[in-house]
Amino acid sequence: METAANAEVRRAVRARREEFLATLFRLLRQPSISTQGVGVRECADLLKTVFDEHGFPARLLPTAGYPVVYAERRVAHDATTVLIYGHYDVQPPEPLDAWRSPPFEPTIRDGRIYARGAGDNKGQFLAHLLAVALLEALGRPPRLSLKFLIEGEEENSSPNLPAFVEAHGALLAADLLFAADGPMHLANRPIVFFGLRGTLKMEVEAVGPNRDLHSGNFGGPVPNPIWMLVDLLGTMRSADGRVAVDGFYERVVPPTAYERAVMERIPFDERAVKADLGLREFAGPAGLSYFEKLMFQPTLNITGIGGGYTAKGAKSVIPSRAVAKLETRLVSAQEPSEIFDKIARHVHRHAPYVGIRNLGGTRPSKTSPELAVSRIITQAVADAYGVEPVVMPVLGASGPNYLFTDVLRMPAVWVTYGPHDENNHAPNENMTIEAFLDGICASALVLERLAAAPRVALASFAP
Amino acid sequence: METAANAEVRRAVRARREEFLATLFRLLRQPSISTQGVGVRECADLLKTVFDEHGFPARLLPTAGYPVVYAERRVAHDATTVLIYGHYDVQPPEPLDAWRSPPFEPTIRDGRIYARGAGDNKGQFLAHLLAVALLEALGRPPRLSLKFLIEGEEENSSPNLPAFVEAHGALLAADLLFAADGPMHLANRPIVFFGLRGTLKMEVEAVGPNRDLHSGNFGGPVPNPIWMLVDLLGTMRSADGRVAVDGFYERVVPPTAYERAVMERIPFDERAVKADLGLREFAGPAGLSYFEKLMFQPTLNITGIGGGYTAKGAKSVIPSRAVAKLETRLVSAQEPSEIFDKIARHVHRHAPYVGIRNLGGTRPSKTSPELAVSRIITQAVADAYGVEPVVMPVLGASGPNYLFTDVLRMPAVWVTYGPHDENNHAPNENMTIEAFLDGICASALVLERLAAAPRVALASFAP
Repeated sequence: METAANAEVRRAVRARREEFLATLFRLLRQPSISTQGVGVRECADLLKTVFDEHGFPARLLPTAGYPVVYAERRVAHDATTVLIYGHYDVQPPEPLDAWRSPPFEPTIRDGRIYARGAGDNKGQFLAHLLAVALLEALGRPPRLSLKFLIEGEEENSSPNLPAFVEAHGALLAADLLFAADGPMHLANRPIVFFGLRGTLKMEVEAVGPNRDLHSGNFGGPVPNPIWMLVDLLGTMRSADGRVAVDGFYERVVPPTAYERAVMERIPFDERAVKADLGLREFAGPAGLSYFEKLMFQPTLNITGIGGGYTAKGAKSVIPSRAVAKLETRLVSAQEPSEIFDKIARHVHRHAPYVGIRNLGGTRPSKTSPELAVSRIITQAVADAYGVEPVVMPVLGASGPNYLFTDVLRMPAVWVTYGPHDENNHAPNENMTIEAFLDGICASALVLERLAAAPRVALASFAP
Repeated sequence: METAANAEVRRAVRARREEFLATLFRLLRQPSISTQGVGVRECADLLKTVFDEHGFPARLLPTAGYPVVYAERRVAHDATTVLIYGHYDVQPPEPLDAWRSPPFEPTIRDGRIYARGAGDNKGQFLAHLLAVALLEALGRPPRLSLKFLIEGEEENSSPNLPAFVEAHGALLAADLLFAADGPMHLANRPIVFFGLRGTLKMEVEAVGPNRDLHSGNFGGPVPNPIWMLVDLLGTMRSADGRVAVDGFYERVVPPTAYERAVMERIPFDERAVKADLGLREFAGPAGLSYFEKLMFQPTLNITGIGGGYTAKGAKSVIPSRAVAKLETRLVSAQEPSEIFDKIARHVHRHAPYVGIRNLGGTRPSKTSPELAVSRIITQAVADAYGVEPVVMPVLGASGPNYLFTDVLRMPAVWVTYGPHDENNHAPNENMTIEAFLDGICASALVLERLAAAPRVALASFAP
């Protein structure tokens, strides 16, 4: 429903387009690869400056890792308090040669901004800040207390955010959590989602001979660590595509009737999705729908494997070591630490010369899409985009959402501002200029609607 | 048995040590990585110069790939003709960061020459040339016709040598083939060997989605090419360590009683071998000895595997592609092309989205250790080193030996001049200075003994 107020915001966003793009580009030019330790602290400093310049004096709050950028504006005590979450760190850009333009030199082609972090998450959390600044400039600041928590370790599974949240419970107290991350639905309809799968990342390393050996002079009697990995990994999945680790599914709960109904309303054009991904078949346990596998089923994914020689030609070698990176996505009440213990036991039982290391994880979490706050935000997004958003009880991806729902005990509602093909976590990550500007409009409307709702109405439905 | 003649050679080798090392270093400084196409032609030119300078005017004979360096000296028609084989190409040096000094800057540490190609094969074939030049300088040239065939594609499975040999049958005709390659036995006793396993190199590539995908947003329903490879490779070996490809063992013949007897005389200190390699257990089919697995059994080795992200930290990705390099070692009458067909059929049956490519191979081959020429060379090596050589009916490694035994139809006898820990095909490849000089002495004695034997005695035992 387009109102005069909406239209004013929309015009103002377009008028300040160059300024807003320039601000985003400043952030994108600064690498901030948390898993590689590249540029993260510099990015925190830069982000503080950007907050300061937009009238939100920010602080860098230390953690055991990279600092949290925190900024707030408090209004009357009875006003609703919104905690806004985002992350300024990015995924590694590798493989570099697959990028059409350098990952940290934002480049516009065909209306798209190509850069690592364009969508995930710099171009999305920034929309909230620019929205508030814009509303203030228009003389209609929303009557909300706002708290920004922008962390620098999300792409590394937020190892220090739990301790940070435990230590700053009062500072972070709020009526709800609002955040934007992830790509839109294939048809470029925004997604409002209410939960995330958990994740657990691991590394397994197989050890063979103490040095690389000539595979002719030693091949046969000498064990090969790549075979060890292959044999081990082969024991970890059944032929039916399910994870074959004892107790892995113990805490997995199937979707409720309500969740299933919402799930079945999610539009899904199987042929279009397959064409977009270049696939002839989907994978995963038989008999489950695409979205059930994505939202309500855990996975065991091999995110990387390496050993021996894979460049041009061939090399006759038995390598000394081989490594694989594993990752599970977790659902329902699966606990990363418990799942790690089960997988580590499996590895020790099946592969005496393979070591396993826990690279960190986050718990799965959910908020009910039936809460008042859930409905207000869903409606605001519908009005901002002029189209019904796709409502997803759970998104396939992961994040530290459980800290808000389970530790700080507030409902948490997420929106996706990125284009469906933003290529987050992949080469040529991008954000369309339109999607970036639309995100600012959407944030403005969400915040205005939350300001307009009586706080008691929100609170009465809190989980 | 040290004679005055031997002693003279030994003194002369030591006297010319610096000159001989300088010649070897010239060859080692020139990269010649045939599988990567780096420096190979330059190395052929350089080698021609080295032959020319030593009184053997050489020719570069073209092939469809890199040229053969050919040099000969013919004496009387009734003299024995020895064909000497070697290769001037080398393995890729990767992984570079595992080298203590750069692979193409030969460096002496603790009496060892560290460089790619030091042992395999520049420091070994060069010994023959230097031996002949030395004997000539001492005024006692062996009464032999000598033909040097030094190729540039051995490390790439000699793809063009078969056609070359077919085309140059008359040029290459000889009474026997003599060559030096490979490491000595663990106790630094030279090995005289009479056969080689065959080899077949392959690449398999699994194709998943058409681009790298976020493993959260797509994990579950979208197939992962690394899992495809793991699943496929898991079908290719049985739990007992045997290759599980239909018909793979069809032409494999167990060792004869004689071969078994020779095999059982090979010294083997299981504890020392395990300690040297840092292994607690050996691999391979149960119930077979170390040497039976190495000499009389085929293998299926994974020489490399790669896909996704394996650097520091973790990346949440479903990669678009994953690749593995496979290699079999072949024995008895196994044919590379027939084995490739069997493996390709297996791949097509088990993995619809995995492609397989043949990267070339060589047939297995053997000469009887009971021939007169076999016994003469074995005895010459024993006398040169003052220790019984280890006699091996077959070496685990591979080479184009079948071209000499099966195509040109001559007995082929091989010696190893490299130290047992030469690290051929691995980082920090090396040759001890002593082993290099000893090789020159051994070549001199072998050639003198062959010159002294009546040609008819050699020929009468030809296979």
